[in-house]
Amino acid sequence: MGQGDYRILHEAALRDYLAGLPELRALLGGEPAAWAITEVGDGNLNLVFIVKGTRGGIAVKQALPYVRLVGESWPLPLSRAHYEYLALSRQAQLAPGLVPALLHHNETLALTVMELLEPHIIMRKGLVAATPYPRFADDITTFMARTLFFTSDLALTAAEKKEAIAAFAGNHALCKITEDLIFTDPYRIAEQNRWTAPYLDALAAALRDDMELHVAISRLKLKFMASPEALIHGDLHTGSIMVTESQTRVIDPEFAFYGPMGFDVGAVLANLLMAYFASAGHERSPGERHAFEGWVLETVEQVWAGFAGKFLDLWRAGASGDAYPVSLFAGEKGAARLEAERQAYMQRLFTDTVGFAAAKTIRRIFGLAHNIDFELIEEPKKRAVSEARAVRLARGMMVEAVAFRTIADVTGAARKLRDWQPELSG
Amino acid sequence: MGQGDYRILHEAALRDYLAGLPELRALLGGEPAAWAITEVGDGNLNLVFIVKGTRGGIAVKQALPYVRLVGESWPLPLSRAHYEYLALSRQAQLAPGLVPALLHHNETLALTVMELLEPHIIMRKGLVAATPYPRFADDITTFMARTLFFTSDLALTAAEKKEAIAAFAGNHALCKITEDLIFTDPYRIAEQNRWTAPYLDALAAALRDDMELHVAISRLKLKFMASPEALIHGDLHTGSIMVTESQTRVIDPEFAFYGPMGFDVGAVLANLLMAYFASAGHERSPGERHAFEGWVLETVEQVWAGFAGKFLDLWRAGASGDAYPVSLFAGEKGAARLEAERQAYMQRLFTDTVGFAAAKTIRRIFGLAHNIDFELIEEPKKRAVSEARAVRLARGMMVEAVAFRTIADVTGAARKLRDWQPELSG
Ligand SMILES: Nc1ncnc2c1ncn2[C@@H]1O[C@H](COP(=O)(O)OP(=O)(O)O)[C@@H](O)[C@H]1O
Ligand SMILES: Nc1ncnc2c1ncn2[C@@H]1O[C@H](COP(=O)(O)OP(=O)(O)O)[C@@H](O)[C@H]1O
Repeated sequence: MGQGDYRILHEAALRDYLAGLPELRALLGGEPAAWAITEVGDGNLNLVFIVKGTRGGIAVKQALPYVRLVGESWPLPLSRAHYEYLALSRQAQLAPGLVPALLHHNETLALTVMELLEPHIIMRKGLVAATPYPRFADDITTFMARTLFFTSDLALTAAEKKEAIAAFAGNHALCKITEDLIFTDPYRIAEQNRWTAPYLDALAAALRDDMELHVAISRLKLKFMASPEALIHGDLHTGSIMVTESQTRVIDPEFAFYGPMGFDVGAVLANLLMAYFASAGHERSPGERHAFEGWVLETVEQVWAGFAGKFLDLWRAGASGDAYPVSLFAGEKGAARLEAERQAYMQRLFTDTVGFAAAKTIRRIFGLAHNIDFELIEEPKKRAVSEARAVRLARGMMVEAVAFRTIADVTGAARKLRDWQPELSG
Repeated sequence: MGQGDYRILHEAALRDYLAGLPELRALLGGEPAAWAITEVGDGNLNLVFIVKGTRGGIAVKQALPYVRLVGESWPLPLSRAHYEYLALSRQAQLAPGLVPALLHHNETLALTVMELLEPHIIMRKGLVAATPYPRFADDITTFMARTLFFTSDLALTAAEKKEAIAAFAGNHALCKITEDLIFTDPYRIAEQNRWTAPYLDALAAALRDDMELHVAISRLKLKFMASPEALIHGDLHTGSIMVTESQTRVIDPEFAFYGPMGFDVGAVLANLLMAYFASAGHERSPGERHAFEGWVLETVEQVWAGFAGKFLDLWRAGASGDAYPVSLFAGEKGAARLEAERQAYMQRLFTDTVGFAAAKTIRRIFGLAHNIDFELIEEPKKRAVSEARAVRLARGMMVEAVAFRTIADVTGAARKLRDWQPELSG
């Protein structure tokens, strides 16, 4: 099939298509006519169908040649389905059980069939409902440590790494969305920006005028564009994670490419911190969500500590890549010096992580894509208060990232802002 | 022609081949049988022929499927001729007149025909002979500023940059040579290492045992592997530069790929500094080369200052790339803050440059490939003295790169070591 054979598979066409695939047909069970097909895509970009037969269910994701949320006026290449498939395959190898199993892929249709995650829900929804996820920190840190370490220069030869970078180079249209919407637009006047007006008007104007912040975001943008450290998920927020109390699954790696590791780790931390600041806006009585909020900050700490610990353990267990060759660190003295350098490496990665977490926060409050953590706070003034607290922390994290030496510095600063009363406009 | 159609063109076959190309035939003039063909490849990797007819001359470079210096036991992909051609084309666009003009390329034969540089000589030879090159600093800084700036994120969109990185990803066999011979082997026991024995035995052992140095070289290696800042030449030493008093031409970009800019700038500085330290070993009477040595250090200063100045001017004149978007630095305050950040950017690049210059120096004294600056000092003890001075400077530059704030810190340190008497072994 050529590129021209792409067509959008809505319900009937999808049913026919799946009926023609014996393995999926067997998996679903029963007659195709009896399969229940529901479009569930709450995402911004693609179609997602859930298909259920008498025996089992599947999820079917198809890319559209444009941004779903906006329409045909904003075209987006179908090739993103190829990169999502490529990334998902790699993640499944490296972090088995932490992504949905791949069942089928059709390059021409930009279509991927995967395991139906059930009864998993999008984690962000659970966080709004103040649900703690006891498995989350352990699972997400395993996912990040393994996918990042094993695609980095610590695990790959330089040749393998260059080939892998090249294999994802074509996903630049998706990178461009990030470059614009996260690293540029929130800091200037842009049509697509929005915020909780009028309350945050002055804050929005202040950010647009804050040149220290503009330097900091520009450095982060450059790092995002030109630091292919590892295969990153590229969109690792709590809307890309599906959970139950006992399971964690990472979905939707269509933004994947070789980029800075701190972007993934920072995304997870930022989304937890936003859940923390949003929490006050969701409480119906003072202190109602106190235990949950404690769990969130504890989880922030566990995410960094767990990630760093697991990443370091993988490194210590043997780095087959071309970076930091063990032959240069022979003997006891060499081993000790290498261990100190590993710690320094993680400290640099922590600084990146702090900065990227800040960038991920600010874009959710002043950019195009907001999140339900804040959006579901009905009273705008209350929402603005929560958002202003998150922004205050983020501004400090971005401009003075190095001043945050440990993750406790971050959670400590967040805790101090829990009841801070910002001055609002309007 | 398929890959299988590759064959080595020695004199007769080359004559026939060129006779079949009307444009080159016209350029050379006269009957093919009368053309003078000489193999001049003093390089380590390839065949280079100079062909002269009645009207004009050309240089013909053909890659061999192995490392020429070593033989068939060390295979090396022919594809390097493709990357050399690609880089040369790009450099010719960006820095016209500073590379030999391209006349013909045959992908299958891994063969490139270019302008004959005459009466140019390899700059390193001139430096050994204490010849100053008054045009050099201005020309090489134009070359570096333009080729690096216009292939960086400051001039390219992120999409263009990713495609460009991918286009050079396949040149990893050449990168691997650098990774091994510059960033690894000199710091460990390796069969191919050699140095001026016995005088430098203790120094070689000290470097192998110097864990601060091993951390520093490992950080530089990682930067070399995973910081695709711009299309770098990748082997920009004074043996890759051909000069007359009034002209400068950069040749041999077969190591080109997207890497850290400081690697090119550092290469130029390191090779000048080595010429400086070697100079004492070449003098037949005290002070004989004093003026030349002054010129060398002045040139070191002019190379950094000229490069930084030109790079900054290109940036100020308009950066069409996705990095540091001007829209984030509007108004007088924005312009001032961006200018300060440009300076900070150059300062970071200077630190990289200092480190890479050190790496380039140490490899020439303890690794596989030495250079005639030192090698032509006949008396081994004298050579060892010059080399030890260069190493002392390099060790400091690598381990404490940030302590060198300005290029005058580098030349000042070099000057202080001009007559330093190292303790030698043996
Ligand atoms: N494997 C799956 N099992 C169950 N539901 C899924 C699965 N994959 C996606 N979904 C649902 O579809 C929604 C959109 O999927 P996602 O991959 O995030 O699409 P988009 O790229 O358009 O954001 C998710 O939020 C989730 O509700
Ligand atoms: N265009 C040219 N004009 C004149 N001589 C050249 C030219 N190109 C190369 N040479 C000569 O051939 C030698 C080897 O060329 P080079 O490109 O450095 O090969 P290698 O990649 O094998 O090191 C140079 O040192 C120089 O003497």
